[in-house]
Amino acid sequence: MPSIKDVADLAGVAVGTVSRVINNHISVKAETREKVKAAIQQLGYIPNEVARNFKMQKSKMVALLLPSIWNPFFSELAYYIEDELDREGFKLILCNSGGKPDKELYYIDMLNQNKVAGIVGITYNDIEDSVSTDIPIVSIDRHFAKKITCVTSDNYAGGRIALRELVKAGAKKPAFLGAVTSVYSETMLRRKGFVDEAEAQGIEYIVYEESDPIIDDNKYFGNFFKVKEHRDVDGIFAITDIFAAKYIDRAKAYGIRTPEDVKVIGYDGIQDNQLFHPILSTIRQPVEEMARTSVKLLLRKIEDETLEQETYRIPVIYRAGETT
Amino acid sequence: MPSIKDVADLAGVAVGTVSRVINNHISVKAETREKVKAAIQQLGYIPNEVARNFKMQKSKMVALLLPSIWNPFFSELAYYIEDELDREGFKLILCNSGGKPDKELYYIDMLNQNKVAGIVGITYNDIEDSVSTDIPIVSIDRHFAKKITCVTSDNYAGGRIALRELVKAGAKKPAFLGAVTSVYSETMLRRKGFVDEAEAQGIEYIVYEESDPIIDDNKYFGNFFKVKEHRDVDGIFAITDIFAAKYIDRAKAYGIRTPEDVKVIGYDGIQDNQLFHPILSTIRQPVEEMARTSVKLLLRKIEDETLEQETYRIPVIYRAGETT
Repeated sequence: MPSIKDVADLAGVAVGTVSRVINNHISVKAETREKVKAAIQQLGYIPNEVARNFKMQKSKMVALLLPSIWNPFFSELAYYIEDELDREGFKLILCNSGGKPDKELYYIDMLNQNKVAGIVGITYNDIEDSVSTDIPIVSIDRHFAKKITCVTSDNYAGGRIALRELVKAGAKKPAFLGAVTSVYSETMLRRKGFVDEAEAQGIEYIVYEESDPIIDDNKYFGNFFKVKEHRDVDGIFAITDIFAAKYIDRAKAYGIRTPEDVKVIGYDGIQDNQLFHPILSTIRQPVEEMARTSVKLLLRKIEDETLEQETYRIPVIYRAGETT
Repeated sequence: MPSIKDVADLAGVAVGTVSRVINNHISVKAETREKVKAAIQQLGYIPNEVARNFKMQKSKMVALLLPSIWNPFFSELAYYIEDELDREGFKLILCNSGGKPDKELYYIDMLNQNKVAGIVGITYNDIEDSVSTDIPIVSIDRHFAKKITCVTSDNYAGGRIALRELVKAGAKKPAFLGAVTSVYSETMLRRKGFVDEAEAQGIEYIVYEESDPIIDDNKYFGNFFKVKEHRDVDGIFAITDIFAAKYIDRAKAYGIRTPEDVKVIGYDGIQDNQLFHPILSTIRQPVEEMARTSVKLLLRKIEDETLEQETYRIPVIYRAGETT
């Protein structure tokens, strides 16, 4: 394959001149431009995109940081994010950063050096110190103090709806099952909505949480069921669908049946719910809208636009299954 | 941020000389080298990786082509592929190419131009005409005539095991439920193993297939159950777990219960199976091993090594659930 050097030699100009012609610089004389174009054509030279990036310092790559693509909610999110980026001519670099903060910092470094155009996703690090304001990052669920745009589902409304639906289904002693992240996350509002609504209704409730990430489910549920009063719980709002499904499974071992003894509501609305036994009642996140909104906002930030809001909360809906 | 031009100006040399110093070219005089290094240090210049790629023509990006990351089997595969690439210092570009052959051809073009170092994944195009032999592509499940390395689970053995397990569970009239791809795929051996084993055992069997991709499940199962003799089937080997779970769901509408009336075995062994109702019996693909093997082979091809085999088939295991 001919190189830019070959083109320069044939045209009798410097490599830099060839580069300026390729990038439509106005500083090249018409005569020289024609000579270079003729040489490009004669040799069948293909301008290298890496080289072009080098000159123009614009990357068409966006990094997606997720704890794990293996999680069904994240894989749905990634699907729509890739689709939206593709429409706009951007490529997606995928990074499973769960439990590996260095991987996130690597991409923030790439961003600071213009090697990726932007970052979208769920970050665990407190990245505020590493980035300047208005940098093209869109965070999903995580909310930072500086101007990092955040796209999230309306977790607080989701929590309130969940409590109301549990009560409507007959629960007298509902519990929230969650995990607490070290960095502030919008997902914590699921608990807050649940608690606020229970207090507004004057209903006794339980909150059970361990530190995120939950590595060992068995231990988590073992700890939960060890507490005797947890076994009388007759309503569960779990922080994710997978958590809800696992609760149902583990509760069976204690003779607790769903929905006869306990009503259960999850959060996410992942596609596989339809195949679960029983089919989960859940708060459905608007995944496609969250994904496409994140990309649209990111591209506006890449273009140096100032956004109207810092946090974009997208409404959720309640989807009844067989567990309430 | 200082540019390479700033370094060149300060050191009083050409940009190309700075580049040669950065890339440890031997053709630079010791004295010049020291001048350039001093300028780099004085300005705090960070060599740009894009620029370095430009000079060295080596990309550290690998493209992963999948029909859809949303599929639970593919997202597990992607998880381990990203993990293995990360260990080796490569980044993963994710592309959902399902139903969009142009997206695959785009990456093959990128590969031909050295903009990505390699491609791994599941391709739908007959890409043989677009690539030269020994190009760094590792195909999963798809088998091409030219030297494109293929990593796959032992689909044929999986098909035989499935038939044997159905018979062992009491099935007298088993059926295979599948989808036929236009390009030759190793997954077709699932049917072949099933058929060969049935014929070896002298057992009546049914094969039902429609063209891949199956866009409308309802139509597929509607067509299947329309045929009266399909309702007497007492064993199902479905080409994927999701297919098996959907069959079980649709069969209920015809009063066909699993496992009382029909035994069902899927293929894949996706994590969510444990939450399905009932828990699927399945042929488990060694996903992690397939993913890591694919990456290891790809990296060897990137290094221009000649591989011993064209097809690497990794053994499967049968995992009993509640459907047999």
